[in-house]
Amino acid sequence: MTDTVDIVPAPPEGSEQEARERLVTEQVLASFESSPDERLKEILQAVARHAHALVREVRLTEAEWETAIEFLRACGDITTDTRQEFILLSDVLGISMETICVNQPATGDVTEATVFGPFFVDDAPLVELGGDIAQGAAGEPCWVSGTVRDTDGKAIPGARIEVWEADDDGFYDVQYTDGRTAGRAHLFADDDGSYRFWGVTPTPYPIPHDGPVGKMLEATGRSPMRAAHLHFMVTAPGYRRLVTHIFVEGDPLLATDAVFGVKDSLVKTFTQHQPGEPTPDGRQIHGTWSETTFDIVLPPAER
Amino acid sequence: MTDTVDIVPAPPEGSEQEARERLVTEQVLASFESSPDERLKEILQAVARHAHALVREVRLTEAEWETAIEFLRACGDITTDTRQEFILLSDVLGISMETICVNQPATGDVTEATVFGPFFVDDAPLVELGGDIAQGAAGEPCWVSGTVRDTDGKAIPGARIEVWEADDDGFYDVQYTDGRTAGRAHLFADDDGSYRFWGVTPTPYPIPHDGPVGKMLEATGRSPMRAAHLHFMVTAPGYRRLVTHIFVEGDPLLATDAVFGVKDSLVKTFTQHQPGEPTPDGRQIHGTWSETTFDIVLPPAER
Repeated sequence: MTDTVDIVPAPPEGSEQEARERLVTEQVLASFESSPDERLKEILQAVARHAHALVREVRLTEAEWETAIEFLRACGDITTDTRQEFILLSDVLGISMETICVNQPATGDVTEATVFGPFFVDDAPLVELGGDIAQGAAGEPCWVSGTVRDTDGKAIPGARIEVWEADDDGFYDVQYTDGRTAGRAHLFADDDGSYRFWGVTPTPYPIPHDGPVGKMLEATGRSPMRAAHLHFMVTAPGYRRLVTHIFVEGDPLLATDAVFGVKDSLVKTFTQHQPGEPTPDGRQIHGTWSETTFDIVLPPAER
Repeated sequence: MTDTVDIVPAPPEGSEQEARERLVTEQVLASFESSPDERLKEILQAVARHAHALVREVRLTEAEWETAIEFLRACGDITTDTRQEFILLSDVLGISMETICVNQPATGDVTEATVFGPFFVDDAPLVELGGDIAQGAAGEPCWVSGTVRDTDGKAIPGARIEVWEADDDGFYDVQYTDGRTAGRAHLFADDDGSYRFWGVTPTPYPIPHDGPVGKMLEATGRSPMRAAHLHFMVTAPGYRRLVTHIFVEGDPLLATDAVFGVKDSLVKTFTQHQPGEPTPDGRQIHGTWSETTFDIVLPPAER
């Protein structure tokens, strides 16, 4: 953005210029009228309507339009099979989170959903209840336990729980080049719907910010940091799939999570324990450790 | 787009779900509040506001969001120094034309602006008034004449007029690999503001439609064709730069121009002449030829 912007003011209501600006939009909407794909028509008409309203409202200059085109090109240039700048863009504009919010409505005590993120891996190892998902990931040990229930409070035995998290350097296993598997696993809920495992206390990390999206965040004074979190994906036949995180109460980054993933209901107390304090399963730990509880409620699959 | 779309209906007004959907938007708007760049803040807040409203209105599904991300990636993949799919996307959604409309307001008899297009070249050859800008470009000869005046009707002597056009195969010179220069030139208006030159009668051609934007047009039943046109860029010290086209009256593509560049005021009568009819400058032409008039009015540079 340049410092001096030569903006053409909005035309007076009822003026010829206003009519001309609206006419362009009407022509575009009309061009989609005979689309054989009704849903695509609905979406593209809405895209055009909002994009045009945006241009008119902010009185976008031609130089700013060029900057936007260059920005999109730069996003394309940095995107590879392992780096998706358009997803980052959607994330930092909260578009991803809004899409999830629309599609995973949480009513009553149904657990709220949040962003999936790029670090999930299929076929993470099976860990027994009470086992250690860290599997070598560096970090303070953290005991996580809870239940998986339906909206009537009935246990969902055997619910599949996928968990994944970064180590205390802020990296997921797949970000290392040595092919390690650590900080991820799947477990199955017990007959009473309960589950428990050892992981590591979540720590914050930045989204990739060496590209155009990072530059945009910097230019607007925003942080690329995500609040510390632990990922969950919970599935059970007959229930809606839940993709969510839990966050750490007191984390100063909760209010400025770069991708707007934080929900109050997902912020959990992580109780700190001193070295030597007895652990829930009798495991011997030499340093500090933490403990949290996350009770999960799944809605029926049918809406 | 899939045929069956599992859309979550809009939440009732005043519901908790509605509040949750709005909260995401509010969080994103707030994240830009402390931007040191006021203009960037204004634009990005408007982008977020409209993008979120779009997601909520159409109840965008997660699968559709993924399709949109893949579409943007495909646009990035096909983009090179000579192929800019994001500009095409902006063009076929009428965003380019709306931006021009906002920035080049045409009031009274000021000549309307239209899209610049990707085929302008700096340093096109100088042609004397009455000369031939075709310079070998295939097509029916066309005599173009007119005046360049200000909003008081006063001639603008010496106004610089850049003209460029496709040949009758629908290609601009720069689309050939032999380095030719044809169908483009610059001229200077006479002392009385008049100008005249020979070119070729404009013919229609498609925008590049072998990429994701072309697929989108096809999926919505839209044509990639541009209405036949001849480009003008007119500059003179103290006046606003005009970038425009003239179109051919009776062209069946006028109503469906792929980039929404057509303005009624820019549609001109191209009078057809039979072989042997005397030409305005006495030039001998063996086949048919055409003739049109385009009088240009430039507003002052200051707004």
